[in-house]
Amino acid sequence: MLVDNKHYRTIWFKSESSDKVCIIDQRYLPHQFIVEEITTVDEMVTAINEMHLRGAGLIGAAAGYGMYLATLEAEKDKLFDASIKLSANKLINSRPTAVNLLWAVNKQLNAISKCTGIAGKKTIARELALCIADEDVNSCKSIGINGVKIIEEISHKKNGSVVNILTHCNAGWLAFVDYGSATAPIYEAFNKGIRVHVWVDETRPRNQGSGLTAWELLNAGVPHTIIADNAGGHLMQKGMVDMVITGADRVTGTGDTANKTGTYLKALAAKDNDIPFYIALPSSTFDWKMTNGLHQIPIEERDPDEVKYITGLYNNKLTKVLLTPSDSNALNYGFDITPARLITGLITERGICNANVKSIKELFPEFLL
Amino acid sequence: MLVDNKHYRTIWFKSESSDKVCIIDQRYLPHQFIVEEITTVDEMVTAINEMHLRGAGLIGAAAGYGMYLATLEAEKDKLFDASIKLSANKLINSRPTAVNLLWAVNKQLNAISKCTGIAGKKTIARELALCIADEDVNSCKSIGINGVKIIEEISHKKNGSVVNILTHCNAGWLAFVDYGSATAPIYEAFNKGIRVHVWVDETRPRNQGSGLTAWELLNAGVPHTIIADNAGGHLMQKGMVDMVITGADRVTGTGDTANKTGTYLKALAAKDNDIPFYIALPSSTFDWKMTNGLHQIPIEERDPDEVKYITGLYNNKLTKVLLTPSDSNALNYGFDITPARLITGLITERGICNANVKSIKELFPEFLL
Repeated sequence: MLVDNKHYRTIWFKSESSDKVCIIDQRYLPHQFIVEEITTVDEMVTAINEMHLRGAGLIGAAAGYGMYLATLEAEKDKLFDASIKLSANKLINSRPTAVNLLWAVNKQLNAISKCTGIAGKKTIARELALCIADEDVNSCKSIGINGVKIIEEISHKKNGSVVNILTHCNAGWLAFVDYGSATAPIYEAFNKGIRVHVWVDETRPRNQGSGLTAWELLNAGVPHTIIADNAGGHLMQKGMVDMVITGADRVTGTGDTANKTGTYLKALAAKDNDIPFYIALPSSTFDWKMTNGLHQIPIEERDPDEVKYITGLYNNKLTKVLLTPSDSNALNYGFDITPARLITGLITERGICNANVKSIKELFPEFLL
Repeated sequence: MLVDNKHYRTIWFKSESSDKVCIIDQRYLPHQFIVEEITTVDEMVTAINEMHLRGAGLIGAAAGYGMYLATLEAEKDKLFDASIKLSANKLINSRPTAVNLLWAVNKQLNAISKCTGIAGKKTIARELALCIADEDVNSCKSIGINGVKIIEEISHKKNGSVVNILTHCNAGWLAFVDYGSATAPIYEAFNKGIRVHVWVDETRPRNQGSGLTAWELLNAGVPHTIIADNAGGHLMQKGMVDMVITGADRVTGTGDTANKTGTYLKALAAKDNDIPFYIALPSSTFDWKMTNGLHQIPIEERDPDEVKYITGLYNNKLTKVLLTPSDSNALNYGFDITPARLITGLITERGICNANVKSIKELFPEFLL
């Protein structure tokens, strides 16, 4: 997508021959656009864990690149296999909720183990890192093409007047390699000339909505309005929301969805007001064997200081301010579970299905028995 | 309630003979405790409108004191009645959603009009201001005594283990003259030795939860944890919430409740997880003639900058930081409507009733026909 009219992905090699991995350090957005160069597995683990980069698809892609860096480090160690395993474990454990991490690392481990010779292992890991990233881009593009039909239909029903879409957190191109999941249908609709307007949940505590999604939409010229997370229910009550699309960090084979904390509340409000509620995801986000989101998906508990402090711009400098009494405790679960019963449909790269085993199986017969 | 072990109300005359009205300027909490002295109606209007003070009960009390100041100003004007009417209008229009404002101003207008002679009008207005404040205190005390029974019952069912109560916004003593509405049963339980713990919704955009409720609970020694507004649904899913109590800004005769934006989302989640959801209110918060909250209660739209900026402590100074791209728009409705069907009960100064006409009428037969 465009940043100041220059095309970017969220992760790339500095050049075709370079081993430096470039990422956009999202901690500085929306105020500063900073590219970080990563050269070690540990730096990549830090970038994932401390959220220089975040989002289901991008975390997966970053793990892919990380595993390439792991082959470079393993070459220097005596014990190649043990070194690779160690790096894989570090990457897998850098964030607990996003299944894409596990998916990408396993894909790499499998490919690396099948290739003989260290040179070959390095080559295949580099190729696969690029391939995982490209696959993410293509999936998101397809999600856009599939999802735009829903927006078109609503636009048609409203005789071409503005379609108001609410989204939570950032499942935009910054959360993937390009296009995004929840935003892909929106960008597609916008590019087709369908009139859309996006309600952007700010998404406390880390404000990925007001910081990242709004920044993306602003760069792309898509009309949008930032709202407090508390506001969405009332907008729905007042008929000001036509549909909800969010991304997902992990979706069970039965359609239960782990996504950024607060998604469940919006799904309840959408249900209460008969508003369609969609989850957009590439199939890498499915955890096929899981059947009960609430009991099986691990929910990350993050630093309480993310609730107690917030960073914003003051005198053109990023400044961290204390919001609470310093002696009060805070608790910070990063995700919640939206039960399948509240989800109108899943928008995937293969098409749209309902959030149940039968319908998911029709699109992905090879994964579900 | 106590601030650094000294007892305070939220509004008082500086001395028995003084015409200066003192309030706690809540914009500086939780970081600084500042008392503001108010001497004119316009200052009181500003204090209400710009939220130096806020909360249903306190706004009512402030309007009561404001009308006393109005009699002092009217005495100086030639046209006493016109001056009083002008002041009344200014006060009524200082905030649109809280019905207590209208209630207190009308009570004063009625008393002032019945009294002959300017000296008498001044005296009655001063007396009535004190009386409205005392009535608020007594109502809140009774709400505590009535509401504690629910907490006691849950504590008993849990064999004395900690009762986890979630609250949204600040319906504490800072929102009233003393004790608070939603917090009154909590303080009462705590003082009786019942083990309680409060989940404090931070309550964006103005953070009355993390700024005011947490500060109150900290000063009173009540165990509490601040959470992002997005988190409550997940805590309920995980069985970590035993009940919800919030305040209200206006309640219809049918039990529909306008309260701080986001309350509706918590009510939906409580319903979805079979968790009792209570509204605590003094009867001055009822708008007896209204029958449909969603269609009849006006919802205040506030400055979008409350969403785009936030104030916190940096280097021991209150500092306002920008959270969003500066060119993005924001929208800021202050309240939402929780339909009666989602409310387990209303805790009032006369007792607890269900959120429907029949049950409300049993407690308040004189207001509902």
